[in-house]
Amino acid sequence: MNRAQLIQTIREKRSYLCVGLDTDPHLLPASFQRTPEGVLRFNQSIIDATSSTCVAYKINTAFYESLGAQGWAVMEQTVQYIGNSHFIIADAKRGDIGNTSHQYATAFFSQLKVDSITVSPYMGEDSIKPFLSFPDKWTIVLGLTSNNGAADFELLNCEGAPLYEHVLRKVSSWGSPDNLMFVVGATQADSFTSIRSICPNHFLLVPGIGAQGGSLRDISQKAMNKDVGLLVNVSRAILYASSDADFAEVAAREAGKYQAEMATYL
Amino acid sequence: MNRAQLIQTIREKRSYLCVGLDTDPHLLPASFQRTPEGVLRFNQSIIDATSSTCVAYKINTAFYESLGAQGWAVMEQTVQYIGNSHFIIADAKRGDIGNTSHQYATAFFSQLKVDSITVSPYMGEDSIKPFLSFPDKWTIVLGLTSNNGAADFELLNCEGAPLYEHVLRKVSSWGSPDNLMFVVGATQADSFTSIRSICPNHFLLVPGIGAQGGSLRDISQKAMNKDVGLLVNVSRAILYASSDADFAEVAAREAGKYQAEMATYL
Repeated sequence: MNRAQLIQTIREKRSYLCVGLDTDPHLLPASFQRTPEGVLRFNQSIIDATSSTCVAYKINTAFYESLGAQGWAVMEQTVQYIGNSHFIIADAKRGDIGNTSHQYATAFFSQLKVDSITVSPYMGEDSIKPFLSFPDKWTIVLGLTSNNGAADFELLNCEGAPLYEHVLRKVSSWGSPDNLMFVVGATQADSFTSIRSICPNHFLLVPGIGAQGGSLRDISQKAMNKDVGLLVNVSRAILYASSDADFAEVAAREAGKYQAEMATYL
Repeated sequence: MNRAQLIQTIREKRSYLCVGLDTDPHLLPASFQRTPEGVLRFNQSIIDATSSTCVAYKINTAFYESLGAQGWAVMEQTVQYIGNSHFIIADAKRGDIGNTSHQYATAFFSQLKVDSITVSPYMGEDSIKPFLSFPDKWTIVLGLTSNNGAADFELLNCEGAPLYEHVLRKVSSWGSPDNLMFVVGATQADSFTSIRSICPNHFLLVPGIGAQGGSLRDISQKAMNKDVGLLVNVSRAILYASSDADFAEVAAREAGKYQAEMATYL
């Protein structure tokens, strides 16, 4: 999905909601087996329940890898089930030397066939550029993350600016707003204004709403640009809103609430 | 494998060689099918050819993920084939918010059953600590990597010291030399003396010998400590030393040369 298509989808659905499929077998409703097959069936139910109100799905690779090869197969089947109607993010936080990053890009863009992957910037240019070389695919680089640990290195003062600002500036020069996004946590609302001065046109993938406590109103007011420029992710607060037989209905309702609030900001 | 066992293995074999299984189907000798099964058979041949001269194997997850779920299964089968005689590293460069890092730790330590995993430090303490909570498992955190891109962020001057030195100091306080190692590229030999002043006792995983051009002599002289404290990785220069039918024999000879040189430094 290219930038024009993504923006059109957001405008049509009046939503910039991304549903995070961080599916933990231990948290499935009682009617599901705690197996790879159970995870797939749960994902299908959540996708059915939320596809009309969200524009993107984010697959957190860790939860599938913890099920081994069968978990990887569930990830593949989940991507196939979503189809082409939504922007699909592999939240994988990869990045390595050039020839290895190229293998990761092949794994996610050519083999798994997602639209985008999250990448850590620590190793620099040759760890990120291989991802940017795939046409119509997106690289989503960690900027300022939502967790407490962001203070350890991302906020270190480097030559007069926090590390994450160096990341935003330098990585921006390696790609364009057509193939590059940044992760900025919703818990970092105070920084959104300065982030938008560095990256006025890039889409931002914003986790940290819901279980992590970020405010949808805050980040929408501070970080929306003329093309919306936001994908706001919610995982646990939708997936596990109910652990009973009504989980899909409740997930649909919760996703609908986020969409309705988003519509008021558009 | 714990620290005492690792040191004993190194002393007994007079080797601190790690063979990197960055197995690319496109580079297999002609007698192998370019399939997941071909990759597994090649890995088994390389393991047979090098097990007597190396103490560790490093599995580069990117090369397996690019084959999808079947690739992940080959990774599992490769780990099983290596068995308990060698220290096994998943070179995965993972790291995410706490509950996700815990899932990655489960994936690699409990499910895949490797001894160690490489982790990116960008997201800070809560992204690394979940890995450190698994008994008798090791977390290998990126310090100063071997690639050109290391200059982009790892060498940024942050409050008077390069970023990677902040990483070494801060991450050292979260674990101990019994469960924590650092990645330092062999191409960064000028920095090994200062790195050893920060981390005198930690093992260092050193890639960058061979195809990337680092010197085994340099890093051995500058970075060895009283417990050796080094695992030096070679991937392409062993795996693909010959692309003919004699590939295993040539791989064994190349690994033997590295081991023989290492023995002179011990």
